[in-house]
Amino acid sequence: MLNTATEVADPEPDERPAPEPATAPPPVATGHDRDRLSVIGGLAALSLDAMASVAYGPEAIVLVLAAAGGTGLGFTLPVTAAIAALLIVLVFSYRQVIAAFPDGGGSYAVAKRHLGRRTSLTAAASLVIDYVLNVAVSTAAGVAALTSAFPGLLPYTVELCLAVLGLVTLVNLRGIAHSARTFIAPTALFVGAVLTVIVAGLLRGEPAVPVAAPVSATDPVTAVGALLLLKAFANGCAALTGVEAIANAVPAFRAPAVRRAQRAEVALGVLLGVMLLGLAVLISRYEIRPVPGKTVLAQVTDAALGHGVGFYLVQITTTILLALAANTSFGGLPVLAQLLARDNFLPHVFALRARRQVYRYGVLVLSALSALLLVFAGGQMNTLVPLFAIGVFVGFTIAQVGMVRHWRAERGTRWRAKAALNAVGAVLTGAAAVVTTASKFADGAWIIALALPVLVLGFEQVHRSYRRIGERLQLGRVPDEPCRGRSVVVVPVGCVSRLTHDALACALSLGDEVVALHAAYHDEPAERERFRAEWEAWHPHVPLAVVDAPERDLGSPVAAYIRDTYPDRHVFVLIAEVEPSRRWERILRNNRGNVLDRAVRRGTGAIVCRMRFPVPA
Amino acid sequence: MLNTATEVADPEPDERPAPEPATAPPPVATGHDRDRLSVIGGLAALSLDAMASVAYGPEAIVLVLAAAGGTGLGFTLPVTAAIAALLIVLVFSYRQVIAAFPDGGGSYAVAKRHLGRRTSLTAAASLVIDYVLNVAVSTAAGVAALTSAFPGLLPYTVELCLAVLGLVTLVNLRGIAHSARTFIAPTALFVGAVLTVIVAGLLRGEPAVPVAAPVSATDPVTAVGALLLLKAFANGCAALTGVEAIANAVPAFRAPAVRRAQRAEVALGVLLGVMLLGLAVLISRYEIRPVPGKTVLAQVTDAALGHGVGFYLVQITTTILLALAANTSFGGLPVLAQLLARDNFLPHVFALRARRQVYRYGVLVLSALSALLLVFAGGQMNTLVPLFAIGVFVGFTIAQVGMVRHWRAERGTRWRAKAALNAVGAVLTGAAAVVTTASKFADGAWIIALALPVLVLGFEQVHRSYRRIGERLQLGRVPDEPCRGRSVVVVPVGCVSRLTHDALACALSLGDEVVALHAAYHDEPAERERFRAEWEAWHPHVPLAVVDAPERDLGSPVAAYIRDTYPDRHVFVLIAEVEPSRRWERILRNNRGNVLDRAVRRGTGAIVCRMRFPVPA
Repeated sequence: MLNTATEVADPEPDERPAPEPATAPPPVATGHDRDRLSVIGGLAALSLDAMASVAYGPEAIVLVLAAAGGTGLGFTLPVTAAIAALLIVLVFSYRQVIAAFPDGGGSYAVAKRHLGRRTSLTAAASLVIDYVLNVAVSTAAGVAALTSAFPGLLPYTVELCLAVLGLVTLVNLRGIAHSARTFIAPTALFVGAVLTVIVAGLLRGEPAVPVAAPVSATDPVTAVGALLLLKAFANGCAALTGVEAIANAVPAFRAPAVRRAQRAEVALGVLLGVMLLGLAVLISRYEIRPVPGKTVLAQVTDAALGHGVGFYLVQITTTILLALAANTSFGGLPVLAQLLARDNFLPHVFALRARRQVYRYGVLVLSALSALLLVFAGGQMNTLVPLFAIGVFVGFTIAQVGMVRHWRAERGTRWRAKAALNAVGAVLTGAAAVVTTASKFADGAWIIALALPVLVLGFEQVHRSYRRIGERLQLGRVPDEPCRGRSVVVVPVGCVSRLTHDALACALSLGDEVVALHAAYHDEPAERERFRAEWEAWHPHVPLAVVDAPERDLGSPVAAYIRDTYPDRHVFVLIAEVEPSRRWERILRNNRGNVLDRAVRRGTGAIVCRMRFPVPA
Repeated sequence: MLNTATEVADPEPDERPAPEPATAPPPVATGHDRDRLSVIGGLAALSLDAMASVAYGPEAIVLVLAAAGGTGLGFTLPVTAAIAALLIVLVFSYRQVIAAFPDGGGSYAVAKRHLGRRTSLTAAASLVIDYVLNVAVSTAAGVAALTSAFPGLLPYTVELCLAVLGLVTLVNLRGIAHSARTFIAPTALFVGAVLTVIVAGLLRGEPAVPVAAPVSATDPVTAVGALLLLKAFANGCAALTGVEAIANAVPAFRAPAVRRAQRAEVALGVLLGVMLLGLAVLISRYEIRPVPGKTVLAQVTDAALGHGVGFYLVQITTTILLALAANTSFGGLPVLAQLLARDNFLPHVFALRARRQVYRYGVLVLSALSALLLVFAGGQMNTLVPLFAIGVFVGFTIAQVGMVRHWRAERGTRWRAKAALNAVGAVLTGAAAVVTTASKFADGAWIIALALPVLVLGFEQVHRSYRRIGERLQLGRVPDEPCRGRSVVVVPVGCVSRLTHDALACALSLGDEVVALHAAYHDEPAERERFRAEWEAWHPHVPLAVVDAPERDLGSPVAAYIRDTYPDRHVFVLIAEVEPSRRWERILRNNRGNVLDRAVRRGTGAIVCRMRFPVPA
């Protein structure tokens, strides 16, 4: 019914998006069979975000621990281990999500089925926020990788971020058809690079090059509180963003989709876990701490490979991968926005597809919001990462809770175990979300805390409006036969000319009754007479009514005349205007057409027809 | 004929300005008998600008001479004397203009009659430029007077200028009915103040307070070149701006208008001359030189009256008078613009009068341009004064040349003498214009040198366009009888709903033939079928045409269909749109209405009617 509402509230075919998998995976927005995914392909195509998070996740941990100096940094490995544990939980609960929702959809779909609208909208809102933050964070991180390699670029961080963003936006507006294949190479390359770094680092005892700011004995030995560890944990959870991507995109896999998707999910978990732990080991071995202008990953690379070709290769690969990671949001958000638009939660323009299947509005809005965030954060990835984590974990939590409901409803084999698993996930991710929000509130988390409810309320307001419009349009009901009525056409005339002639001819062919209406200024009686004379000289067989405009405003007297003369009839007002073909010549017209149009629309129920009298160049 | 062109090109009564004296005097834009002017009244009402120029004229001279140090400043008096001589010439030649053009009009009218269109347009352009510069200069000078009294305000010069400008603009948008009386008091007060300063100064031997930067013996004794003197002369001619005002406004005087106007003109000349010479005497006696932040007039006042109450009174009076001087442009330019619009040299919106007889567009444009100039010049009157002089003298010259032609044409008594007088005036003013432009070119005179031709070309281009439009509208001819033809109404439909129903009903009452047109996306066959089904279910007795939109764009196929199906018939396209009453809900609509509208207008000769389907809040 609501769906019809959409269609009827906006009765354009171009409004109605083609049926689409509930949430198509970003990279393969419209999944054609030719690029359905194998396990490896899917892993490569969909793990982009997850892998990319390796570039900022570990740094997020170290950043918090550094507050407690060397002692704190000592906890890098344990905290990472905890996150890896959470990763395992997440992976397994998402295996279950995949099994339970073979059509994909992730948190939005789960919540929609099991937790009611409000929650599903919250999930949607958190997804929207994630997509935006993913763009911002990935861009910032990519630029950070670049500036770590080429410190000369540091002063231009923000500009570089916006440049990358602009590039990605353009590419997406042009609408290149993503194929999963596109992403295999860079992802593989990046994973390979990171693993190389790890292996090389493990083999090598001493750092290849002295570390930027090694932990020194002079460090104050501070006590490391549980809260600090919790913060580090929560912050580090940013490394887990993206593990849901596969679950959102089950239908994109080759049959048997579920099995393949599950395998890919597990593989993703293993890879991600290995990389995180490996990096953590190196970080603690080399006693690396965050320094401004050089990412932790870059420092690790330096220490492991030395400051040579390898180093630069790794940095550049990272930058590219992160740019691609940002790009995935452009596949994702517009599709989500389109779904929300179809369900009447967003303006229907978001469901408008331009040439090459591009949802232009979605792309532009996403790009604009990300740009705002980047500017707000001065292009600093470490400012953005925590915000990212929040949204992601709200999503995770909702999905988990939904799954618990799901199992309770299904009561299949070992449902308690499954439910328990998801419950644990829910608790952990929920905790992470709360802690991050609390600890980062002043540093920007308030934005998320504000945006989330605002978005949800916005969705609902839009929905209410569409419903109202839908009702007004009498949805579902087959309308009765449209029947011909007598029509009155009122033609405002200011003088006698070809324009007036054509307008009246037009009106005569349209209406059963035609009235020419001349509004004369009260303070220009001479004018009025001049016009009367002109009219008499012409004497078309059309009745002329003259109204008096006491104030120097034509609109209201015309509207008043129509209101009073035809209180209960179908009235058409035909406004004829000169339309020069040259653009600049438009300024030669006056805005009388608009004035009348506005006044008539405001003051009467009449229908305004605007006839344009073309003037060739 | 052109005048009809105006009316027909824009057939709105509100377009046609009430008949007005060729160039009504600014302060009494629509001269009612009650405030026709006596000699004194006219002098007060129309000499505002001329008197005001006393505030910046002398400074303009001193500024140039100061370049040659003390020696240069010694020439202040002679240069002023030369200017006074020119003043006499101007006054007498304007007496002749008054006699020759009792309907007023000044340079524009003279040129229009005797020098052909191009020149009259040049005169008009120079007038426009003057009006704008008068606002900028007067405002800047007024603020300068203020800041000389209260140096604390100096840093806010530009802000103050814009504030004053804003105030004047608002007053003029509200449209207070100017009466000549309004201006008598302040003008008299100012003249009184300046004369007091002069008399007091002449009586007092020593300066009451030490002069800011007296000419010292240490000054290098530089040779004073003829060019410098010429520059000083040209620059000082700014003091003569405004002497034409009376000639522009003859009809505003009580009968015998010509005699009264001539007397007023002479009186103006005498007063202005006395003030200029008197100030020059004091300047040289007190060896005053320009210093930043304190106007020359302020310095003279200080020296003559001492830094007491009198000083502040004079400064404040000056500020007020200058604000009023700026205000006169707001009476003048909109009227001129209105005249040009009536002659089809400016867009007709400039002839549009709002409530209280205000030509809103003229006022706003004037204000915007002046604001630009003020910001460009950083609110420095000395940057603006030379530019002002140029425009004024172009106008003077044209008027004088026109008068020479006039006398040659009339060959009345002593016509040679009269012609000679005007010829001298023309040469002097022309020279002044050239010198100023040349010497100040780099410092902004280029703006005038650029604006003048651009304006003239603009006027002519606008004129050509209106003529073309007028011809297309078959001016003058009485059009033949408008006759009813068979009409086809095409209704683009996207779905079946109340909106569609109403649209079709509407179309049926309008057209002899109605066709529902559905554009379906090529890549959405399912959609097309769904729609067909809906339509069959409804089965209104209206033929349905379905066109295929291969690209994701509805406009062009619809336009193509109309073009091909009804190549030679009156076609109306009825676009029905939902119109929510709440403003923000407009974003819930898509722009399909506009898309179709644009495509149909571009691609066909059809007439677009847009039906709005209101949705109450």
